[in-house]
Amino acid sequence: MNDIQHLINKINKFRDERNWRQYHNPKDLAISISIEAAELLEGFQWINSEEALKTNKENIREEIADVLIYSLMLCSDLGLDVKEIVEEKVVKNGRKYPIR
Amino acid sequence: MNDIQHLINKINKFRDERNWRQYHNPKDLAISISIEAAELLEGFQWINSEEALKTNKENIREEIADVLIYSLMLCSDLGLDVKEIVEEKVVKNGRKYPIR
Amino acid sequence: MNDIQHLINKINKFRDERNWRQYHNPKDLAISISIEAAELLEGFQWINSEEALKTNKENIREEIADVLIYSLMLCSDLGLDVKEIVEEKVVKNGRKYPIR
Amino acid sequence: MNDIQHLINKINKFRDERNWRQYHNPKDLAISISIEAAELLEGFQWINSEEALKTNKENIREEIADVLIYSLMLCSDLGLDVKEIVEEKVVKNGRKYPIR
Repeated sequence: MNDIQHLINKINKFRDERNWRQYHNPKDLAISISIEAAELLEGFQWINSEEALKTNKENIREEIADVLIYSLMLCSDLGLDVKEIVEEKVVKNGRKYPIR
Repeated sequence: MNDIQHLINKINKFRDERNWRQYHNPKDLAISISIEAAELLEGFQWINSEEALKTNKENIREEIADVLIYSLMLCSDLGLDVKEIVEEKVVKNGRKYPIR
Repeated sequence: MNDIQHLINKINKFRDERNWRQYHNPKDLAISISIEAAELLEGFQWINSEEALKTNKENIREEIADVLIYSLMLCSDLGLDVKEIVEEKVVKNGRKYPIR
Repeated sequence: MNDIQHLINKINKFRDERNWRQYHNPKDLAISISIEAAELLEGFQWINSEEALKTNKENIREEIADVLIYSLMLCSDLGLDVKEIVEEKVVKNGRKYPIR
């Protein structure tokens, strides 16, 4: 089994053990990604990157994890293959921003 | 090589081909994750999940990819192992929300 | 009539002329504030404040307006007095961060 | 003096008493608006508007105030007249979405 699917399985096991999928409609998962993204951003509020990584490294680490967890949940629920959608977008970005 | 590292390598190749790492300090990557998270959320604005997936599936797919791309960039730049930080957070969440 | 109510009346007239209140439940208005806040932030992506104001002044001006418009709509719909809630929060912040 | 300027003066007095303007460059104020917008959105996470207003009315009230406070700070610092930029945007929106 590949690593991404392994992580998705752990995340799904976590929420099924608690019967939480009932709350996890796609719109609320998208909302959650935004909420966690802002909590990540809060680690950099008022200060520069260097200072943020000195002071808030642990928080930043956890908030990136939260963004990834909800994003993986949403991919899983929408039947999207992470590898496929990321590779497709990198290719699309390549056409939008050709190498000069 | 595992799948996550494979995706990170593709993303890093893309930005190195264009010499874009000079702009990618951690604070601006965190800002970018928030921007893309909001573009994902826009696919669900005013409508419910069902309608959103019927009307905006393609956009939603691309915006989740953008959130993942910037998140993987940030993990790579901060030397964070995606598998490790996600598994740690799932375990931490498990202690915060024990199964009843 | 005070200035804030005058602006709220214009905003409400705009949406009633188009029969848009049917979409404007509080949760979707909160979503909209986040979406516009991110569009404002996009004006500062990758660059510093000085550069952003030189290059994106017009966009930034419009996006702050959008954030304010949705925030005023939400206050209006929830029966919240803008002057009252802002003054209360400034007082509360004053107790949390006393002058040293 | 009009109400908006009165609120802006209170907000500016608060931050000058604490010598906080040194942190308040426009980019970090835009970041702060996004952070508070997400805290507002958190009051609606997983639940519908009705439930949110029953359970989280006090939080929601404070978070809208925070969004407004940072937005008013940013307008003040950029020399933008709130009344003017909001009215302009409502007019612009009126051209984009004519009444049918």
